[in-house]
Amino acid sequence: MLRIGLLTSGGDCQALNATMRGVVKGLANNVKDLEVYGFMNGYKGLIYSDYRMLSAKDFSGILTQGGTILGTSRQPFKLMRTPDANGLDKVEAMKHTYHKLLLDCLVILGGNGTQKTANLLREEGLNIIHLPKTIDNDIYGTDMTFGFYSAVNIASDAIDCIHTTASSHQRVFIVEVMGHKVGWLTLYAGIASGADVILIPEIPYDIEKVCEAINRRKERGSGFTILAVAEGAIAKEDAALPKKELKKRQEEIAKKYPSVSYKIAEEIEAKTGMEIRVTVPGHMQRGGSPCPYDRVLSTRLGSEAAQLILDKQYGYMVGMVNGKVKKIPLGECAGKLKTVDPNAQEVLQAKRMGISFGD
Amino acid sequence: MLRIGLLTSGGDCQALNATMRGVVKGLANNVKDLEVYGFMNGYKGLIYSDYRMLSAKDFSGILTQGGTILGTSRQPFKLMRTPDANGLDKVEAMKHTYHKLLLDCLVILGGNGTQKTANLLREEGLNIIHLPKTIDNDIYGTDMTFGFYSAVNIASDAIDCIHTTASSHQRVFIVEVMGHKVGWLTLYAGIASGADVILIPEIPYDIEKVCEAINRRKERGSGFTILAVAEGAIAKEDAALPKKELKKRQEEIAKKYPSVSYKIAEEIEAKTGMEIRVTVPGHMQRGGSPCPYDRVLSTRLGSEAAQLILDKQYGYMVGMVNGKVKKIPLGECAGKLKTVDPNAQEVLQAKRMGISFGD
Amino acid sequence: MLRIGLLTSGGDCQALNATMRGVVKGLANNVKDLEVYGFMNGYKGLIYSDYRMLSAKDFSGILTQGGTILGTSRQPFKLMRTPDANGLDKVEAMKHTYHKLLLDCLVILGGNGTQKTANLLREEGLNIIHLPKTIDNDIYGTDMTFGFYSAVNIASDAIDCIHTTASSHQRVFIVEVMGHKVGWLTLYAGIASGADVILIPEIPYDIEKVCEAINRRKERGSGFTILAVAEGAIAKEDAALPKKELKKRQEEIAKKYPSVSYKIAEEIEAKTGMEIRVTVPGHMQRGGSPCPYDRVLSTRLGSEAAQLILDKQYGYMVGMVNGKVKKIPLGECAGKLKTVDPNAQEVLQAKRMGISFGD
Amino acid sequence: MLRIGLLTSGGDCQALNATMRGVVKGLANNVKDLEVYGFMNGYKGLIYSDYRMLSAKDFSGILTQGGTILGTSRQPFKLMRTPDANGLDKVEAMKHTYHKLLLDCLVILGGNGTQKTANLLREEGLNIIHLPKTIDNDIYGTDMTFGFYSAVNIASDAIDCIHTTASSHQRVFIVEVMGHKVGWLTLYAGIASGADVILIPEIPYDIEKVCEAINRRKERGSGFTILAVAEGAIAKEDAALPKKELKKRQEEIAKKYPSVSYKIAEEIEAKTGMEIRVTVPGHMQRGGSPCPYDRVLSTRLGSEAAQLILDKQYGYMVGMVNGKVKKIPLGECAGKLKTVDPNAQEVLQAKRMGISFGD
Repeated sequence: MLRIGLLTSGGDCQALNATMRGVVKGLANNVKDLEVYGFMNGYKGLIYSDYRMLSAKDFSGILTQGGTILGTSRQPFKLMRTPDANGLDKVEAMKHTYHKLLLDCLVILGGNGTQKTANLLREEGLNIIHLPKTIDNDIYGTDMTFGFYSAVNIASDAIDCIHTTASSHQRVFIVEVMGHKVGWLTLYAGIASGADVILIPEIPYDIEKVCEAINRRKERGSGFTILAVAEGAIAKEDAALPKKELKKRQEEIAKKYPSVSYKIAEEIEAKTGMEIRVTVPGHMQRGGSPCPYDRVLSTRLGSEAAQLILDKQYGYMVGMVNGKVKKIPLGECAGKLKTVDPNAQEVLQAKRMGISFGD
Repeated sequence: MLRIGLLTSGGDCQALNATMRGVVKGLANNVKDLEVYGFMNGYKGLIYSDYRMLSAKDFSGILTQGGTILGTSRQPFKLMRTPDANGLDKVEAMKHTYHKLLLDCLVILGGNGTQKTANLLREEGLNIIHLPKTIDNDIYGTDMTFGFYSAVNIASDAIDCIHTTASSHQRVFIVEVMGHKVGWLTLYAGIASGADVILIPEIPYDIEKVCEAINRRKERGSGFTILAVAEGAIAKEDAALPKKELKKRQEEIAKKYPSVSYKIAEEIEAKTGMEIRVTVPGHMQRGGSPCPYDRVLSTRLGSEAAQLILDKQYGYMVGMVNGKVKKIPLGECAGKLKTVDPNAQEVLQAKRMGISFGD
Repeated sequence: MLRIGLLTSGGDCQALNATMRGVVKGLANNVKDLEVYGFMNGYKGLIYSDYRMLSAKDFSGILTQGGTILGTSRQPFKLMRTPDANGLDKVEAMKHTYHKLLLDCLVILGGNGTQKTANLLREEGLNIIHLPKTIDNDIYGTDMTFGFYSAVNIASDAIDCIHTTASSHQRVFIVEVMGHKVGWLTLYAGIASGADVILIPEIPYDIEKVCEAINRRKERGSGFTILAVAEGAIAKEDAALPKKELKKRQEEIAKKYPSVSYKIAEEIEAKTGMEIRVTVPGHMQRGGSPCPYDRVLSTRLGSEAAQLILDKQYGYMVGMVNGKVKKIPLGECAGKLKTVDPNAQEVLQAKRMGISFGD
Repeated sequence: MLRIGLLTSGGDCQALNATMRGVVKGLANNVKDLEVYGFMNGYKGLIYSDYRMLSAKDFSGILTQGGTILGTSRQPFKLMRTPDANGLDKVEAMKHTYHKLLLDCLVILGGNGTQKTANLLREEGLNIIHLPKTIDNDIYGTDMTFGFYSAVNIASDAIDCIHTTASSHQRVFIVEVMGHKVGWLTLYAGIASGADVILIPEIPYDIEKVCEAINRRKERGSGFTILAVAEGAIAKEDAALPKKELKKRQEEIAKKYPSVSYKIAEEIEAKTGMEIRVTVPGHMQRGGSPCPYDRVLSTRLGSEAAQLILDKQYGYMVGMVNGKVKKIPLGECAGKLKTVDPNAQEVLQAKRMGISFGD
């Protein structure tokens, strides 16, 4: 008899279902008596013992299905240690549910915040496997997270669509891509779709340099310019502020503009006199059917997670390192962020071709 | 010898290239000496005699290509009669170019505004054929315009993507669909993607009714609701205002919100306490490769336009009526708008299934 | 209390689920006590009383899902009157199941064969509504069937893919499109994707004319040619045979070639010395998610079927006529086929542009 | 002044244009006087001095365009040393063209055969850069080739489409995937789309085992089974034959069946009595627009190739190794094939989930 729990936590993304299918098929095919408990809506389901028993049938036909059959919720790590409104200690409650159900292992799908809580539960003695989910690809210890390439596809489609309309109208367009802290998604979607300017959090931009790039294109006869801008793109002068002042500054910006692209559009208009249009695909980037790349990645990670459970090896994230699926001790990766090095190959390769990063 | 001019005017959309290909292939295959003059950037090219000679090769491989190889520009009809900065009479300038190049016919691709100018040129004695382009499907006299179904596909994809994330997070989402004056695009994309609420300009909404629909879903256990909202959605109380006050009101709204969806989101949040997310695919809806439906439509309209030119029949829009390509006298359709009847079959069919229009 | 039965019969296609969703949502929203019986695997489920009760939940999330949640089977009309292996009279068995369950109406989704049986059941006194499903768009009495445009999309994608490889290699390619008796799918996919030659059952081809078209392109400098060929494409000399000899001839062909395209490829190679490649997307054309066009169509037809049931109006197919959903008496359309008129607008428009039909 | 030559050779695939764009943009942005010679139709253009001068404009807008703007042709390595019909020594002719045009470097895009000739030219003293193109991902020395993931997407789409129709009809389907010698494409598309059986050249199949897998699914209540079968799938008994007999055997099979899938279908039908359908997407897998993954990969490889040329570092393939773009000496990789290890992680992970490889 093997009893496992499953939960998906944090902002949703594609291939969550595909990953869970990988885990469960990998186990069901090798274990006689398997019980799968699906906790609803992220850690909430674990805290409040809200779960349903899942059978093989629940995992049939979900390989290509977006979202998560378990639901999810954002659960900031910081609040995990804070008792809830009724005074319930959340960590103890999670442990209680785990032990009550006699779980052999809890498989947790999520991003950085989720991973921190997963590590905390590991430290509290639970058997944990973590699977790295996020469209941001910012999880330390794995080369790739599932969701990333599906989101790249959607963001690239958006820029591709804008391309035909921009070139027909000779306009400047900003496409805002998800990513508050890291720029992988913007960088890859920007390169994939031939963006002329790419602005990411890791490389603060100088608005003068951005406008120069636009004008340079104009002089060369290309009347349109497309900017791929991460949600977390930041101006050089702001990036230089002390932390406290920066926070204040960001709150000012948030009050004045729906998002950073509108601020940048205003600055460019002021400096170049050109008309700028902003497109914000937003949550579309988390949705829809996972792309085949992600389905393969998810299935492989899920199947390997099953093997770890069969081998009673707990306390790991299952990630992809140099093309091989590897187990990485949670203690080594939890709490760390994988950001874009301003001198990363991708950045230098893009710059070589004339793509401006505004620096 | 046959000499024709081609121009694309107004906001761009998919299948402009496919349509021009239809016209030119339909002629080239039946006329020995054909000269094709492509005017650049809409009526501007005609006014300022900015054109290039096009050969068969220019139309090869563009069937699936978005945008327009001629460029386009928005040229409000009202200003056509106003002399330009140098005192040039624009209408006379257009006639001059036409006659100077000894054109037999000028083929004009565009929407309502473009059509009005096309009709004006017809009244001025030029041989004109108009082809109905717009993602809005609001051109009177034709059942369908090219661009419409390509845009429906993009807007539907957006709503589909939002569906998976909305259902995973139990959230209320607004997807804003293009359409300032007419709601066809929102109506069709909304039905195609299972939106729960559809708000269009032709059916002013009562925010109470909208919130009721959201709450009704919640009570039935569906924690998420998706609203497809047209850019021109309007509140009942605003729709009732006299024209002058309405304009003032709309200016106020435009100052306060990036677009109408943000206003509606604020109202729903205030009334229901629920958190709402807004997604604005925006100009994406005009871009990308035309869908096969539009490619067939465009090719058929273009080929039929060629036949009209071969038959020296001018002064028509070529449209689709009851599944057949027909010629419609420009004088009969120019200046009229095809809006959604609040009692249209589509609306009643949607309501029957429980979709709310907020009325 | 309202009790309805649902079944899907014949070759599957896209939007079967979307249509059933339309019917059930249209009813559930207007009837207090609704019981829905889903018969499994086409008429088989009705004959052998194999059904399951369906609830609203079964129809949630299936709008975009291909296939049919009820399963289907091909059930040739001719055999309907033949008793089964156990001597069971199938028509009586179907009536028995219908009456046993106290059904108010049986909603049947299917193509021509299915429709004939539906009409037979109507003649036997059952309350029947038929909804026109087929990728072939060959059902008499409706301008459009659901499944058609989804299949057009897939066949067009196939030809589009072949286009890039054909032009890179300067090769002749045949893409075989579904359609044994009618050519709508081939005609529309061919036009949509810029096929150079379109061969359909309704216009028998002369292989000499086909080769001329290929050679003409070669002479003009286009080294590649793409042929969209319907499964039922037929040579002029074969089409002229008396029915009996034709059947013999077709059996010979079927023995020698996997499908007609291979025969045509052999003929072209023999006559032109060029190398031909054949691609057969096959059953792909019935699968995958329905396109937004089909989802709107299906939802509208389904919702209107619900209204007919609410109004106790039975014995109709619900179809689309001149852009409006209409009810068509089953007795008027059953047993008739809607084929491509060799002088249809679409054919003439294509020919005008230089597309060869081999005639 | 820098003069480079470009050619694309072998079966075409997606992202050839994107790669050339990367090379040329990477150079044009860093070199004052750049001359780009595009050789037409693979090595043929180099042999017969058939080329055209390319400007920046030729590379604009081709990032998303399938095929190759230069054309291509299959040029078996073995024949390179054989004089042509006019007695021309092909290798000498290529060297002559290269030197005549004063090229600084020749950039060659192609697969294994192309690479061997590229290496031969390097040995003859030409400055060569090779870029690894193939949907097969079988080039030794690089983890990934461009074209692979675009082809995975198309093959997966095919299997996805078949999935809905297979499950509706309870049928067994074979989808034949490209790959005569290596199974990467079938393996990845099969995993991505939930194939139940995957047959690849590297793992010879036992038809009994294949039928067992089908029957096992039937017993468990899944009436349909999907097989992803590589073109080069081989039966165990054939794989065991001595080379000479094997060749004879393969010729027999080729005479009897259009492709291997039809043979396997026949065997399964004979053993299980089930009806099998075969789908062959064929050349579709090489066509269409490259996916964003491939566009990023191609752009990165192309840009890095530009850097090598700027640094006068010749004689390399530019590949992807452990996520980094690296240069690999042509002498080290030419002539070697990267096949699927029967114990590769991907295979074991798939088997763990119950996917059968027929072994």
